Amino acid sequence: MQLAAGQAPVLIQIHPQDNVAIVANDGGLPAGTALPDGLTLAEAVPQGHKVALRDLAQGDAVRRYNVVVGYAAQALPRGSWVNERVTTMPAARTLQDLPVGTRRIAPLPPLEGYTFQGYRNADGTVGTRNILAISTTVQCVQGVVEHAVARIRRELLPRYPNVDQVVGLEHTYGCGVAIDAPGAAIPVRTLHNIARNPNFGGATMVVSLGCEKLQPERLLAPGAIPIRAGQGMAGEGDVDTIVLQDDEHVGFESMIDNIMRTAERHLEKLNQRRRETCSASELVVGVQCGGSDAFSGVTANPAVGFAADLLVRAGATVMFSENTEVRDGIDQLTARAATPEVADALVREMAWYDDYLQRGHADRSANTSPGNKKGGLSNIVEKAMGSIVKSGSSNIDGVLSPGDRLTRKGLIFAATPASDFICGTLQLAAGMNLHIFTTGRGTPYGLAQVPVIKVATRSDLARRWHDLMDVDAGRIATGQASIEDVGWELFRLMLDVASGRRQTCAEKLKLHNALALFNPGPVT
Amino acid sequence: MQLAAGQAPVLIQIHPQDNVAIVANDGGLPAGTALPDGLTLAEAVPQGHKVALRDLAQGDAVRRYNVVVGYAAQALPRGSWVNERVTTMPAARTLQDLPVGTRRIAPLPPLEGYTFQGYRNADGTVGTRNILAISTTVQCVQGVVEHAVARIRRELLPRYPNVDQVVGLEHTYGCGVAIDAPGAAIPVRTLHNIARNPNFGGATMVVSLGCEKLQPERLLAPGAIPIRAGQGMAGEGDVDTIVLQDDEHVGFESMIDNIMRTAERHLEKLNQRRRETCSASELVVGVQCGGSDAFSGVTANPAVGFAADLLVRAGATVMFSENTEVRDGIDQLTARAATPEVADALVREMAWYDDYLQRGHADRSANTSPGNKKGGLSNIVEKAMGSIVKSGSSNIDGVLSPGDRLTRKGLIFAATPASDFICGTLQLAAGMNLHIFTTGRGTPYGLAQVPVIKVATRSDLARRWHDLMDVDAGRIATGQASIEDVGWELFRLMLDVASGRRQTCAEKLKLHNALALFNPGPVT
Repeated sequence: MQLAAGQAPVLIQIHPQDNVAIVANDGGLPAGTALPDGLTLAEAVPQGHKVALRDLAQGDAVRRYNVVVGYAAQALPRGSWVNERVTTMPAARTLQDLPVGTRRIAPLPPLEGYTFQGYRNADGTVGTRNILAISTTVQCVQGVVEHAVARIRRELLPRYPNVDQVVGLEHTYGCGVAIDAPGAAIPVRTLHNIARNPNFGGATMVVSLGCEKLQPERLLAPGAIPIRAGQGMAGEGDVDTIVLQDDEHVGFESMIDNIMRTAERHLEKLNQRRRETCSASELVVGVQCGGSDAFSGVTANPAVGFAADLLVRAGATVMFSENTEVRDGIDQLTARAATPEVADALVREMAWYDDYLQRGHADRSANTSPGNKKGGLSNIVEKAMGSIVKSGSSNIDGVLSPGDRLTRKGLIFAATPASDFICGTLQLAAGMNLHIFTTGRGTPYGLAQVPVIKVATRSDLARRWHDLMDVDAGRIATGQASIEDVGWELFRLMLDVASGRRQTCAEKLKLHNALALFNPGPVT
Repeated sequence: MQLAAGQAPVLIQIHPQDNVAIVANDGGLPAGTALPDGLTLAEAVPQGHKVALRDLAQGDAVRRYNVVVGYAAQALPRGSWVNERVTTMPAARTLQDLPVGTRRIAPLPPLEGYTFQGYRNADGTVGTRNILAISTTVQCVQGVVEHAVARIRRELLPRYPNVDQVVGLEHTYGCGVAIDAPGAAIPVRTLHNIARNPNFGGATMVVSLGCEKLQPERLLAPGAIPIRAGQGMAGEGDVDTIVLQDDEHVGFESMIDNIMRTAERHLEKLNQRRRETCSASELVVGVQCGGSDAFSGVTANPAVGFAADLLVRAGATVMFSENTEVRDGIDQLTARAATPEVADALVREMAWYDDYLQRGHADRSANTSPGNKKGGLSNIVEKAMGSIVKSGSSNIDGVLSPGDRLTRKGLIFAATPASDFICGTLQLAAGMNLHIFTTGRGTPYGLAQVPVIKVATRSDLARRWHDLMDVDAGRIATGQASIEDVGWELFRLMLDVASGRRQTCAEKLKLHNALALFNPGPVT
């Protein structure tokens, strides 16, 4: 390990009370490196990893973000490498006696005049893309729907230039599941609400097998009337349902033909839609991080947090999520709750998740991955502090249970597992029309249903993955840009992407991950 | 409901002691229909549904397969329609004091001289197809692997005519999971063993992200050495691993290029393979049913059971599965156990599954679907009796836990959930090289990894889904063929399909469902 010629060694300390700082330099710093303030590294320290700024005795608290993120498991003299092997993790914060609303903040000053070009829906939501979604009740129909989608893309879509894409909403749920078990409500409402995502224009069609447990009536909205395909165009709130086991289907081609005929009626309707000027307050942004490293909480996530504040100031909706990544900062969240009801709901979701993990003989420590640790995150407490900063600084206005749909604007905690694809799927169900994803180790994440803006925590990653990363937040670590600079850049990019003026890297490459349902219930 | 002109009314009684029989006629039978034996239908009865053959008082046992499948919830005079609304379900059989080996059968007479043309593998298994599989450690890489697979199929595969297909083994596991929770062993060993399926020629390659929990080392076989791509051809037992986060990757195209270069080396090796004459004893057949109706247990499943006996007689391996569909016949299975150890293992798997369902506040009654009931199956007890007949009549030689790989031949109970895709995925992991799937309601089921032979329980379905159903077992109900006839037809078809002389409907249409892992552990 050697410092590149001309490069100055850089340590980043988040808070003046912290007794560790992280190495910013690409490739880390070699043993013996002398820092300007007189500190000398006792050993080589990789990029993103922590260095002791003071002598720590065994048992001393390790402070980062002005929070205890661990305890020294052995004496760690000033200049030592502080990692998961030489520290222990703090116990989980109990859910009793949490501060409620103590950090209630005066509403942030309104931010006015920002707009984007979106698709207005009859239910009041606004889409950022104009997509034909084909919902499914059960995995049995997946093969048929994939064939149909491929043919629609090839044969029909080119004739409807105002429609961005055709997407099959495939999943492994629907049958072979205990659909009346308590946990089953989550996947059922998730599928129900995903079909209502703002980017689908309220004109969803459903392909059903016929004999599955998740019958179309159960999948659809209360009040929505499933009509069989071929009975004329679905009206507002109606849904076209194609049932493969229906007698009308004679062989595979007749199934495909029926789906394509129905799709064409929907494409005609969607093709007539036009973008209109909409207030930035119509944005519904889901923020998430994956493949995190120690820079996530220093560069990308604080910049996303700054942008989240801008969105909240503009009257928009911002969802942050990932239960196990906020669990250790629950007191920070309840302190920011706008009302006691919001604090109660936060605690309710954390308690439910504690119980869910405990039933599976796991706990929040199961969250951190080998890559997290390699990237400098010693444990879930440290990871959580870096994750929560994505939520910015405003009051928390509401809490959503997994699979539920948004009913209000502002900063919302959408309770989800931290698993990238399960979180993304649940944020889609909540009504997200734009997705921000930060990554330190690097992931080619993408969703077919909404644009995903990917933010790199390090410039090295942004350079190497030049066509996979939309924003380089690593410039914050090197001093080339401030958190505010990148935050504003992100905010403006969101308006451009939402308007269709710019495509994200994942859109250009057509990189899409499959939906992943959260099913806490058993399979049968 | 009217009986078609020239059609005679047909009731099918499975066992002389049964007090119900089912209506065989397409479209069911109208009220007032007079049967040859003097019985008159008191009401209209749909196809596949039960008719009382004797007067049943409230509380009387309803017998089918000479087993109590329910109790009359009200008086049911002779000629009544007997369905789930007028019956109650028997309590679950306890797992204590089961008969062990009481029905031990003299080994069936050997069946010799049957062969197929297969691909011999170094580990002693035999493939029925010659497939390049690209395994994955985590869902993050899915978008990249999908792009690579599409390009390999388009640009490389046509140059390697002896290779049947390129398949990405994608899944939603690998990260965001509690990988050290007790339940996690199942998905981990499932992925490990799927990569070793006989149809992949022992030359699997792996695409990894880099920071995931399911590191390639953890996915791979004990003893297998993961080598990074570009370090030369993998030797026996070695696996080529491409890690997207590795420094060598500069942008998306370099990832695709790397995967394609590695794939080409594997294709060259696979292309040199040739089919050889193999004994029918090398077949590893997984049997399964889905979208069942009352005919499943009368036509298709008994024919599959007859074929299963032929396979066992030929020295082959037959796996039957679906825990909740054998639970109510566990005493029949323990009675057929070849050894006390097999009986113990059967009870162990049932007890584990009872506990798993109970933790999720569900029980075996969650198995039956609306389509099952519409098709005439009143409850899981009746469904189970019709499902178990797929296993034929021989001794049960072994039991596999979910995700485990076969270690012996003969008739094996592979314990899996009944969910079609989870069961298929676990049978793939066990080492299945041919799949038999029976269906009454109809499902376009298919897997990319092995040929799937689909057997229709009713001629009406076989006629309508003419290009989706490989075998019409409905001829058994109409008297056009015997169980033995269809059983032999299936056996011969298996040899043809295994040899590549015939393609299945799913292969011709390229109908494939996604893998679905069984993960009893929590996500984080």
